[in-house]
Amino acid sequence: MALPPESELYAVADRLADAARAATLRHFRKRDLGVQNKDAANFDPVTRADREAESAMRAILAEDRPEDGVLGEEEAPRASRSGLTWVLDPVDGTRAFVAGAPSWGVLIALDAGDGPILGVIDQPYIGERFWGGLGRAELVRDKRSTALQVRPCARLADATLLTTFPEIGTAQERAAFEAVNGLCRLTRYGLDCYGYALLALGQVDLVIEAGLAPYDIQAPIAVIEAAGGIVTDWQGNPAHRGGCAIAAGDPWLHEAALNVLNGV
Amino acid sequence: MALPPESELYAVADRLADAARAATLRHFRKRDLGVQNKDAANFDPVTRADREAESAMRAILAEDRPEDGVLGEEEAPRASRSGLTWVLDPVDGTRAFVAGAPSWGVLIALDAGDGPILGVIDQPYIGERFWGGLGRAELVRDKRSTALQVRPCARLADATLLTTFPEIGTAQERAAFEAVNGLCRLTRYGLDCYGYALLALGQVDLVIEAGLAPYDIQAPIAVIEAAGGIVTDWQGNPAHRGGCAIAAGDPWLHEAALNVLNGV
Repeated sequence: MALPPESELYAVADRLADAARAATLRHFRKRDLGVQNKDAANFDPVTRADREAESAMRAILAEDRPEDGVLGEEEAPRASRSGLTWVLDPVDGTRAFVAGAPSWGVLIALDAGDGPILGVIDQPYIGERFWGGLGRAELVRDKRSTALQVRPCARLADATLLTTFPEIGTAQERAAFEAVNGLCRLTRYGLDCYGYALLALGQVDLVIEAGLAPYDIQAPIAVIEAAGGIVTDWQGNPAHRGGCAIAAGDPWLHEAALNVLNGV
Repeated sequence: MALPPESELYAVADRLADAARAATLRHFRKRDLGVQNKDAANFDPVTRADREAESAMRAILAEDRPEDGVLGEEEAPRASRSGLTWVLDPVDGTRAFVAGAPSWGVLIALDAGDGPILGVIDQPYIGERFWGGLGRAELVRDKRSTALQVRPCARLADATLLTTFPEIGTAQERAAFEAVNGLCRLTRYGLDCYGYALLALGQVDLVIEAGLAPYDIQAPIAVIEAAGGIVTDWQGNPAHRGGCAIAAGDPWLHEAALNVLNGV
C-alpha cells in the first residue's frame, strides 16, 4: 500500500479535529446535552456532542477519503478499500464532558492495518491539539508548537501514575493495578485521554487502564510512541486492539510495572 | 468596619490574580520546578511556583493594602489592622500542578472576620477566573463573562459528586464519604479547587472533602454562595476555618448528603 503524502493526511486529520471541536464546543457546559445512558448497570452516558462530532467527521471522510475505512464509537464501521482506516472517538471521557471538566478529548487515529501510524488527541475547550506520527510529535495551541518528549523515570518509587477511575477493570485487574499504585510516588485520577497527552509531554510517567476499545487507545499510542514512549497491553503485547493498556515514558519503568502487574 | 468600595476590592483581587497567574505560568510544565516534599510520610509537594506566586501577591498587598491581614499557605500570617484579611492559596492542587494537569488554581479570598465576603478561583493555564461575592457571580475568560448559577438536583441518585482523592480523610471520614459515594449517579476524582468552580457553574452537584485549611476553602465558599449554593462542614456548621467541607448546589441535596455522612 502506497501512503498518500504526509501533508495530505495531516490536513485531513486537522479538518476532522476542527469539525469535532466545533461540534463538541457547541454543547460543552450547555444545559440540554440530551444525555442518554448506554449501560443499564452503570452510568455510561452518550450525548448530542458525541453523536454530532462523529457524524461531522464521517461526513468529511466520505468526501475527502471515500476509500478509507472508518471505525468510530457511535456508528457502524465502514470497511476500508484503501488499506487505511480512521479510528475515531468523538468524545473520549463523556463522563468528564457531562461534568464540565476539560479532561475529555477528541481522538483521531489512522490505522494502516497493524496499528496507528498517526494520532491526534484534541482538547477543544483548552484549545490543545497533540500530534504524533508520520514525523510529528508536538502540541499545538494558539498556533504555537511545543515538542512532545517523554521524560526518563526508571523507578516506580519516583513515578507519577495516572488512571481514570479507582474502580479499574475486573477485581483481578484492580488488584494488579493496586499493586503498582502502592509502589508509585503519586497517583492521580480522572484525566481520561488527557493523561496520555501529559505522558507524551513528559509531565507524568505511567498510565494504566483496563476495558479499552480500539478507538480509546489508538491515538494515544501514536502520540506517545512519537514522543519516545511505549504502550502495550498488560502482557507486553500490542495494545491497539483495546483491552488493558500500560503506557510509560521510560522502558525500565514499563518493565518494572509489567512485572508487578503480573505478580513477577 | 467600613468596607472600601467594591470596585477597589475587585481591582486588588484582579491584581493579585494577575500576579499569581504570571508567577505560576512561568513554571507550569517546566522541567525544574524545585519540587520539595513537605510531608515525610506522603508526597505533599511545594514548588517554586507556590512560593513565588504567594510572594508576588504579598508584595502587592504590602503596597496597596498595608493595613489588611494576610493568611497564606507558604509564609507566616500578617495580622490585620483594618478588620480585613486576604486568604491566599498560591497553588491549590500542587500535586496536579507537578503532574501538568490544569485542575490546580490560585485561590484568593477576602475575610471580614467571620468568613469570606469575596472569592476568586483562577485557573491560569485555561485562562479562567471565577468570581463570587460583593455582587459578583461570574466566570471571566478572554474578557467574556458567563454567569455562575448552581443547578437544582434534589436527590443523591441524580447527583454528580466530586472529590480530589479516593483516599479521603481519616478511616472514619472515608467510610462516611463512601456511604454518600455509593448513592450518587456519578463520582469523579482529581479536580482540586476546579471542582468547586464546576459546582458554581451548575455542571456538578456535590463536592465533599476533608483535611482542608482555611485558604483551601474560603474562596470556594464565596464563589459557590454567590452562585446560589451552600457550603458547610460535615455537621452543617460554617466551613471557613477548614477541616471537612461539603458543597452543594441544591439545599435538599445538601441535607440528604449530610444525613448520610452522619449516619442518620
